Amino acid sequence: MKIALSQLNYTIGDLEGNVRKMANAIKKAKSESVDLIVFSELAVCGYIPKDMLNYQSFIERCYAALENLKEYSHGIGVLVGMPTYSKLEKGKALYNSAVFLNDGEWVKTVNKTLLPTYDVFDEYRYFEPNDHFSLIDFKGVRLAVTICEDLWNLDDPVLYPVTPMDELVKLNPDIMINLSGSPFSYNHVEERKNRMVDNAKTYGLPLVYVNQVGAHTDILFDGGSMFINQTGEIAEELAYFEEDYRAIDWIPGETYQDKSQDYKNEDIGLIHDALVMGIRDYFGKMKFKKALLGSSGGIDSAVINALAVEALGADNVRAVLLPSKYSSEGSITDAKQLAENLGCPYNIIPIQDMVNAVESSLSDQFRGLAPDTTEENIQARSRGLLLMAMSNKFGSMLLNTSNKSETAVGYATLYGDMCGGLSAIGDLYKMQVYEMADYINRNGEVIPTNILTKPPSAELRFDQKDSDSLPPYELLDKILMLYIERQKGWKEIVDMGFDEEVVRKVIRLVDRNEYKRFQAAPILRISNLAFGVGRQMPLVAHFNN
Amino acid sequence: MKIALSQLNYTIGDLEGNVRKMANAIKKAKSESVDLIVFSELAVCGYIPKDMLNYQSFIERCYAALENLKEYSHGIGVLVGMPTYSKLEKGKALYNSAVFLNDGEWVKTVNKTLLPTYDVFDEYRYFEPNDHFSLIDFKGVRLAVTICEDLWNLDDPVLYPVTPMDELVKLNPDIMINLSGSPFSYNHVEERKNRMVDNAKTYGLPLVYVNQVGAHTDILFDGGSMFINQTGEIAEELAYFEEDYRAIDWIPGETYQDKSQDYKNEDIGLIHDALVMGIRDYFGKMKFKKALLGSSGGIDSAVINALAVEALGADNVRAVLLPSKYSSEGSITDAKQLAENLGCPYNIIPIQDMVNAVESSLSDQFRGLAPDTTEENIQARSRGLLLMAMSNKFGSMLLNTSNKSETAVGYATLYGDMCGGLSAIGDLYKMQVYEMADYINRNGEVIPTNILTKPPSAELRFDQKDSDSLPPYELLDKILMLYIERQKGWKEIVDMGFDEEVVRKVIRLVDRNEYKRFQAAPILRISNLAFGVGRQMPLVAHFNN
Repeated sequence: MKIALSQLNYTIGDLEGNVRKMANAIKKAKSESVDLIVFSELAVCGYIPKDMLNYQSFIERCYAALENLKEYSHGIGVLVGMPTYSKLEKGKALYNSAVFLNDGEWVKTVNKTLLPTYDVFDEYRYFEPNDHFSLIDFKGVRLAVTICEDLWNLDDPVLYPVTPMDELVKLNPDIMINLSGSPFSYNHVEERKNRMVDNAKTYGLPLVYVNQVGAHTDILFDGGSMFINQTGEIAEELAYFEEDYRAIDWIPGETYQDKSQDYKNEDIGLIHDALVMGIRDYFGKMKFKKALLGSSGGIDSAVINALAVEALGADNVRAVLLPSKYSSEGSITDAKQLAENLGCPYNIIPIQDMVNAVESSLSDQFRGLAPDTTEENIQARSRGLLLMAMSNKFGSMLLNTSNKSETAVGYATLYGDMCGGLSAIGDLYKMQVYEMADYINRNGEVIPTNILTKPPSAELRFDQKDSDSLPPYELLDKILMLYIERQKGWKEIVDMGFDEEVVRKVIRLVDRNEYKRFQAAPILRISNLAFGVGRQMPLVAHFNN
Repeated sequence: MKIALSQLNYTIGDLEGNVRKMANAIKKAKSESVDLIVFSELAVCGYIPKDMLNYQSFIERCYAALENLKEYSHGIGVLVGMPTYSKLEKGKALYNSAVFLNDGEWVKTVNKTLLPTYDVFDEYRYFEPNDHFSLIDFKGVRLAVTICEDLWNLDDPVLYPVTPMDELVKLNPDIMINLSGSPFSYNHVEERKNRMVDNAKTYGLPLVYVNQVGAHTDILFDGGSMFINQTGEIAEELAYFEEDYRAIDWIPGETYQDKSQDYKNEDIGLIHDALVMGIRDYFGKMKFKKALLGSSGGIDSAVINALAVEALGADNVRAVLLPSKYSSEGSITDAKQLAENLGCPYNIIPIQDMVNAVESSLSDQFRGLAPDTTEENIQARSRGLLLMAMSNKFGSMLLNTSNKSETAVGYATLYGDMCGGLSAIGDLYKMQVYEMADYINRNGEVIPTNILTKPPSAELRFDQKDSDSLPPYELLDKILMLYIERQKGWKEIVDMGFDEEVVRKVIRLVDRNEYKRFQAAPILRISNLAFGVGRQMPLVAHFNN
């Protein structure tokens, strides 16, 4: 049996566009005499469609799109993900389904059993879990079809009471097929491959695993679809961060050569590719061509500038330098040098006149009061205002330049440097930003060395350094990682050998700044716990962990 | 048996504070020889604690807090909600539980069966559903204890396969007790009472229903705890929007007099009380005393100004008038008159100098380009910047003044008039804002008549009216209600008799402005579908409903 794995980049809600992409893949597969082509989870509507699923009009348009797709299934089996009506007397109205089409007919529907409802996943919000198990018979081959999470119940202890493959294996299938929507995170790369290999070995069955690729705002899908031998070798591994297609000539019982690629967790190259794809897809799917950013001469804006140039092209990225009286000469020359290295246009718009006008407008109100962070915020907000004016006038999207460390502790000004349509490095701790800068410079200087070596500063007052207010980033990032990703309380962290005063101060800052993050730009997710939908904390809360 | 209903206002994560409140209620109950006191769902930690539940340190602190509470249970039965470890080999780690304490012992635990995962609820993210049913025997009385949603499975078709009271009634209970965390919405007031009455009638059992009261940022809990006869009359109905306590002398089989209050859906008075509580609690729990708002002389800021004065006191609310060259003389005098009527301080800070400085800073970039919305946004953002500077300098929280109609269609400037720590009327359509203004004026003019009668305008260019860009609010609000609350697609709305071009334009605006709402302030929720956590739409999507 010839089976094609089609790894495509869908757009949520663009049913016509998604079907068109799939139709093209089917045509190619038919020209190669493929018997069965497999697409990913909820491919018809794009995954994750969120509350669009609550609109009956949306579900009906999915059904209509499937009617179109059916027409392409003459002479080929097609497995495709889409939401379907459950038609149950009890329970939620929808299933997350794999629909099997063949010869112009909707032959069979397989529904998802395990509905992830944690982190960025919210599937029980919409779907009823499946509790009936059966195989698909096609050309004498018995297919055990599952959907994403269905193959992930191998933890100890397990998260779900039922393990779908334990049920399906009783029916003597010949091969497993999984339609997946499994997002990227840098500490998930090896895990996903290992889990799928575990499935093949556990059940002694080959596995066709088809993931989607592409970004849906904050959530990045890396692809990496696979064909795995019943003995656990990865015989085919599709591309990461781009669309791909592979047809395999599968002969039951045969074992294929190991062709797995060696991706490691925390590989900065993978994170880089994920972010470039994330920027490119957000702009592309939002129908924006041009980006804009405030270039401060610091490491964060430098990395964003370089990533945006890779994603959108140098002509489409404008660096705007917004010096104040506190900006060092080095900052301006470094930012200029960066733009010149990248070949992207830049402007210099000094902010001092505007800041003076603001302070003069407020002089009656502020008379006799000492300067404080208010005046620092006025500078950050003046920059935000000027950047947004440029964004509006030229139809360019403003890129936010915050990193995860400062987003965590609130070392950023709401409506100031927190402005922007997309936060590309908001899930990278400061030390990861340095690592990314080194990676960007791997073939020669793109980011000037000076930017890499000078002490981080917001330059909002004379001789300011980040280290005036924050612990050194080497230490801060470790504490943040334990509190945010590993969800440890202050006492557990102190017990690991960190200073209690520092730990409690950092945690207090994280908790207190929930209100700022509530209004932050969407953040490209590259870790297993990014700010945003994956970390839902109350704004009003007294916790004191 | 003497049963006390304790309706309290908890703070999420303030375990010591919450236990202290409960301990005081228990002391009072003991002084009145109460046998059993009932608190609401997750009372120990406050409901909804969100991802705090993912911290083991948090759960352990809940257990420690319960140890304290146990000490107060000598001589009285205590039913209290808290998260407990499931200790299962399979499934999620936690239950949403009702813990029964008596005589210093943790006697029994009842777990929630039906876990709402829709709208603002996300309980399957954290909890394992219960599947074992038993009663609590206390002083010869058999208590059928359930938690909130457990009593809501009376729809047709039902949402959950199991209905807990159907199981519990088989065990011959004497009385039903429900620990609830049921939020307010204006179209939910009658429904909740009707549902609870339905339960009493269906099972022929009296019902003790204890809800919490108070606001947790966006989600407002109205209280309204009840004691209902086995024949369905509401014999006790506790206060709305404030803490309350009631002890009932319950004699099995007896029927008590109907004392239900006549609250109607869409009662503007209830919405008013909900918003005042919401503002007061957000400030109180965030430890802010003072508020600040931009007072434009329009209806939205006028209503916010009046509500904030009710919530925080006139001395604690500062109106800031920020006139530009496009502000009508009427706007300034109306806003001044309003502040004087309310007795709250106000400042006038003209923005023109600042706007001129911005435009002059950008003159090189913008040379030769026609004015467009960029210049309008510069004004809105200049106001935002000045208000935030006032907020920072004086430690006052800025109140956002957007309504639901403009938030829906994006008729607002991100980082401009969208600034603010809390959106108090962001769930009120424009026509509801007018209704609220009339209600505020019910005992005499608070909001000057002129504000009520002049045509709505953003005053960002000469002679601008909202109706230049938007359909009349009477029409707009109807379409928005159908699209947002009733989740109808464009075709369904057109089929109801609305103009296709208008409908599709409105829906397009709603869809396109998802990115603005993503960065909006938290919105006090008063409808069954507010922007925020209750409506989770993708930012990147092609839908075209």
